[in-house]
Amino acid sequence: MSLTRIHNFSISLDGFATGEPQSADAPFGHAGQRLHQWMFATRFWDARGTAGVDNAFAERHSHGIGAEIMGAGKFGPPGWQDDPDWKGWWGADPPFHTPTFVLTHRPRPSIEMEGGTTFHFLDVPADEALSTAQDAADGQDVRIGGGPTVVRSFLAAGLIDHMHLVQVPIVLGRGVRIWDGLEGLENAYGIEAVSSPSGVTHLTFTRKVVA
Amino acid sequence: MSLTRIHNFSISLDGFATGEPQSADAPFGHAGQRLHQWMFATRFWDARGTAGVDNAFAERHSHGIGAEIMGAGKFGPPGWQDDPDWKGWWGADPPFHTPTFVLTHRPRPSIEMEGGTTFHFLDVPADEALSTAQDAADGQDVRIGGGPTVVRSFLAAGLIDHMHLVQVPIVLGRGVRIWDGLEGLENAYGIEAVSSPSGVTHLTFTRKVVA
Repeated sequence: MSLTRIHNFSISLDGFATGEPQSADAPFGHAGQRLHQWMFATRFWDARGTAGVDNAFAERHSHGIGAEIMGAGKFGPPGWQDDPDWKGWWGADPPFHTPTFVLTHRPRPSIEMEGGTTFHFLDVPADEALSTAQDAADGQDVRIGGGPTVVRSFLAAGLIDHMHLVQVPIVLGRGVRIWDGLEGLENAYGIEAVSSPSGVTHLTFTRKVVA
Repeated sequence: MSLTRIHNFSISLDGFATGEPQSADAPFGHAGQRLHQWMFATRFWDARGTAGVDNAFAERHSHGIGAEIMGAGKFGPPGWQDDPDWKGWWGADPPFHTPTFVLTHRPRPSIEMEGGTTFHFLDVPADEALSTAQDAADGQDVRIGGGPTVVRSFLAAGLIDHMHLVQVPIVLGRGVRIWDGLEGLENAYGIEAVSSPSGVTHLTFTRKVVA
């Protein structure tokens, strides 16, 4: 059974997964890299990094994943659709290494990158995108890569099996919030919280099995 | 030196400290008692309760406190100012046991209750209320008792020395949020997060000492 998973999705204390304004120079706006410093400090990111609880969670990002779905806002800065040469932020060898589906109202032909990543562009609802990604994942799981608008829409549609959030002790004040419109989310998930010596708190949501 | 402290202030994952609508039957609106179940389970609340990390934090509520300041929304349901006999939610012996200052635009004469609690009513700004409460606290600390609007205004004014929040794993979706207007709060505070086996996460904010 293919699961739909979210990993290493970092939010501020006030629930913002990105700051504002987003641009080519500042993909996360005024948040800068502050939401992701915890990850840069792990072995998952850097061989000299830590091997503690932050790393244990971070490494799960890649295991057993056969495809990713991301929103247009993750693939590029506002307006990337007007640049026919834009191929994402990540250089020639993006860190996905699987078919990667970009949700956009202005789809373009697929782009094959090095290292196993192929970007496909879809203008379809969440459930249809998931079906397509599951077919491409060939029995493995599908990761929902963000940003927050995409995560929210998949949660609201009841499509997420596992979600790992990382709460960073900063108050961003503005940006795009993860929580809006998700009242009662706890009814569908078992939730665990684990604080780390690094200062972040890992929150895991595991979908309850309906007997 | 008298410190200004916040204790046992419970919020949802999405940062709401109360639900809606608030009424005499539902002081926390649709949140019910869900934000405070962690506290009801401790020895601080009930002699048969737990003595773990939740209780260790909860007990700090009362130690060294000489006065409390609360908002009108904590003292009673909407409209309590129209009821000349309203004396708060807590019966004849309220759990404050100190002078307790209620911020309201419609002050009334002070009310002496049993057990050391006297309610005083003030229509003044946060800093002035704090001065008055500090005088009454006679060298002890002042607790800011909530609700969220009052906590936010004291934080925004830079008046809080210690804050203890308790994040409960529910998504309320609506109500009154603690975080609005507090961008960059982490610059003024050292922040620790400690998750508890009960499922809540304790967040402590300790004001940084400026050399």
